[in-house]
Amino acid sequence: MDNFSFYSPTCFVFGKDSEKKTGDCVKRFSGSRVLIHYGGGSVVRSGLLDRVKASLDKAGVTYAELGGVKPNPRSGLVYEGIELAKKENVDFILAVGGGSAIDSAKAIAAGVLYDGDFWDFYQGKRIEKALPVGTVLTIAAAGSEGSPDSVITKEEGMYKRGASSDAIRPRFSILNPALTQTLPAYQTACGITDIMAHLYERYLTGTEEVEVTDRMIEALLLTMIHEGPRVIADPDNYEARANIMWAGTMAHNNSCGVGRSQDWLSHNIEHELSALYDCAHGAGLAVTMPAVFTYEMKTNVMRFAQVAVRVWGCQMDFAHPEVTAKAGIEAFRNFLISIGMPKNFEELGAKEEDIPRLAEVLCHGDGRKGTISGFITLNEDECAEIYRMMV
Amino acid sequence: MDNFSFYSPTCFVFGKDSEKKTGDCVKRFSGSRVLIHYGGGSVVRSGLLDRVKASLDKAGVTYAELGGVKPNPRSGLVYEGIELAKKENVDFILAVGGGSAIDSAKAIAAGVLYDGDFWDFYQGKRIEKALPVGTVLTIAAAGSEGSPDSVITKEEGMYKRGASSDAIRPRFSILNPALTQTLPAYQTACGITDIMAHLYERYLTGTEEVEVTDRMIEALLLTMIHEGPRVIADPDNYEARANIMWAGTMAHNNSCGVGRSQDWLSHNIEHELSALYDCAHGAGLAVTMPAVFTYEMKTNVMRFAQVAVRVWGCQMDFAHPEVTAKAGIEAFRNFLISIGMPKNFEELGAKEEDIPRLAEVLCHGDGRKGTISGFITLNEDECAEIYRMMV
Repeated sequence: MDNFSFYSPTCFVFGKDSEKKTGDCVKRFSGSRVLIHYGGGSVVRSGLLDRVKASLDKAGVTYAELGGVKPNPRSGLVYEGIELAKKENVDFILAVGGGSAIDSAKAIAAGVLYDGDFWDFYQGKRIEKALPVGTVLTIAAAGSEGSPDSVITKEEGMYKRGASSDAIRPRFSILNPALTQTLPAYQTACGITDIMAHLYERYLTGTEEVEVTDRMIEALLLTMIHEGPRVIADPDNYEARANIMWAGTMAHNNSCGVGRSQDWLSHNIEHELSALYDCAHGAGLAVTMPAVFTYEMKTNVMRFAQVAVRVWGCQMDFAHPEVTAKAGIEAFRNFLISIGMPKNFEELGAKEEDIPRLAEVLCHGDGRKGTISGFITLNEDECAEIYRMMV
Repeated sequence: MDNFSFYSPTCFVFGKDSEKKTGDCVKRFSGSRVLIHYGGGSVVRSGLLDRVKASLDKAGVTYAELGGVKPNPRSGLVYEGIELAKKENVDFILAVGGGSAIDSAKAIAAGVLYDGDFWDFYQGKRIEKALPVGTVLTIAAAGSEGSPDSVITKEEGMYKRGASSDAIRPRFSILNPALTQTLPAYQTACGITDIMAHLYERYLTGTEEVEVTDRMIEALLLTMIHEGPRVIADPDNYEARANIMWAGTMAHNNSCGVGRSQDWLSHNIEHELSALYDCAHGAGLAVTMPAVFTYEMKTNVMRFAQVAVRVWGCQMDFAHPEVTAKAGIEAFRNFLISIGMPKNFEELGAKEEDIPRLAEVLCHGDGRKGTISGFITLNEDECAEIYRMMV
C-alpha cells in the first residue's frame, strides 16, 4: 500500500426531508449570503428550489440565484457566476442539483477569490482558496458532493478538463434519496454507470497488497448490482435509492481509493465523447468501459479475474484465468445494457469517422504530450483502436 | 435505511515515517503548545516519543507531557491531565499510543474546558467543546483515532463508561503501520478482535434494507480474515499491517454504520469483564462475542446466516438456515482461537462465582434501570446466562 493522506471533512446530512436543513447547514458553516446555483427545469418544477429557499429564509440566510447549468457544465456560465457572486457579495455557494451544478458551483467558488482566469485551475494551477460550497444533491452519480473534484468544459475548443483541491470540497451535502425518485430511468441508469465507473477506475491499480480497498470497492460494486435493477424496475423504491446514494458518495470520497494508483483512462477516453456529442457522461462510460477493460486486460489478467469472481460471481477457470477475466467484463457489459445503457457508438450517437479527431484531441489537446496514462499508457493510435472497439 | 448525519473531519496521514509530520499537523490545526499524552514503556523505548518531540521541535511547537496511561484508562490520570493542561496552558492534546491513550486524551481535552467534573460526560452529559486532539497511533484496534468516542474507567466502583461527541474527534491521526510491527502477538490479536467486534456490532441491526453498509462491513471483515493470520505468522509484514490499520479506522469512523441501528451488547457485556479483571478488551470480546451471538441468533437467523455465507464462506443450508447461522459463529470462534485469543472464562482469568456480581453491575450500575439494549434487550438473568455460556 502506498503512503497517503485522507481528508473528507464534508458533513453529510442524509435522509427523507433533509433539504429542510439547508438553512441550518449554511449557517453552521458560517454562510450568511448565498449564491444558489442550479440547472433549471426539474429543480424548479418539483418545488425543491422553493423548499430550499424556504429553509434559507427560515435560517435568516439571504441569497442570489443563478440557474441554467447544463450537463457537461460550460465555462461560460462559470464566468457569469463569478461576476454575479462578486456583484452580490455572497460568502457561500450552494449547488442544488447533480454533478454538473456542483462542479460548476465549485468552479465559481474558486474563481471568486482568484484574480486571474478560473480556467487556469483546469490547466493544472493549484486552487489555494475558495468560497465555501454546500450541495443539495438530486442524482446519485458523480460523487461530486463528497469529492475535491470539478470537471468543466471550455466552449472554445470543447475541452473537458478537471481540477481538484480540498478547498472546493463541499462543507456539507444534503442527500435525500427521495429527490432522485422522479429522475427518468435513463438518467438513473447513467448515474449507476458513473458510480460503477468510479469504482472500477480505483480497482484497476498497479499497487499490490491493497486487500482492504479492493474489498471495499467490491462491496460497493455488489451493492450497485443488487440495487441498480431494483430502481430501474421500481423508480419509487426509496430504500434502493438510499443504498445507491450512499454507495455513490462512498465510491468517490476516496475512502476506498487511498494508498493505491488509480486508472481513470475510461473517464479520459469518455470525456472526449461527451464533449463532442454532448451525450450523458454515464452513457458514454457504458460504451467506453468494456472496450478499455478488454484492451487493458492482458496487462493484469488476475486483477480482472478477481473482480469477475468476487463481484460478478463468475467461476474461476484456474487453467485459463483469461476466460474468467473476459467473462467478468462481459457480465458488466450485459448489466449495463440491462439497465438501459447504450452498447456502441451508434446507440450513443457517436460517429466512426470522428475517431481520428477524438484520439488526436485526447492525446494532444490542451497541453497533453501524445499519450494518456492510468492502468496502462496509451498513445494516439491505441486510443483510436479503443474507440474503434466501441463501434 | 434510517436518516443520519455523517461527519468525519479527521485528517488521516498514513504510511511509513508519517510520525515525522506530527509537528506540521499540530500547526495545521492551530496548535502551538501541546500536552503529549502516552502510556509509557514501548513508546519511550522504541524511540517514537523522541521522534514525535523532534517533529514538534522542528515545527516550533512547545510541549508538556504526561505518561502513565494504562489499558482500560482510569479517571485518576484524566484528572491529573486536566490539571496539568490548565497549569501548562496548552491549546492542543496529542495522544501517542493506542485506544487507551487516545481515549484518555479525549477526556482531558473535554475536561479542560469544563468547570464541573469531567465524569459528568461519561454519565450522559453532552460534550459541547473541547481542546483539539491529535493522535499518533501505535496499535490498530480501538478505532478511537477516527471516532467521536472515549471510554474511561472510574476507579471508585470500577465503572467503565463511554462518552461521544464530535468535539473530541481527532483533528488529525497519524497512522504508520510500521509502528505496530513491534507489538507482541497477543496484543496484535486483541486489536484484530476489537476491530472485528466493531464490525459485528454494526452488522447486527434491526434496520432493514441496508445492503450498502452490510456489504461494506463484510468487506472489512473479509480483510481481517485475510490479513489477521498473516501478521500473526509474520509480525514484520508491513503490507498486512497496513491493510489491518486502514480497516480498523474504517470499521469505527462509522462510514459503514450509518443509517442503521447497532448492537453493542458484546461491548457492554465485555466492559464489565475488563473493568473487574483488567483483562485486555479484545481478549474479553473474543470470549464474549460467540456467547452473545449464540444467544442473539434466534432473533434473526437470516442475519447470522448471511454473514456466515458472505464472510465465512459457509454453504447455505436452505432447509435449515440456523445450521448455517451457527456454523458462521463457530467459524468466527475458531478464527479467534487460531490467532491466539482465549476461548473461555478460565483462559481469560475470569471467575464463574463472580457472574451474579457481573450481571448486577452491568444491569444496575451507574444509573442503569435493570436492562441493557442493542440487537435485543437483556435483563440481569439473561446477562448472567450469557456469562455462564462463556464458562
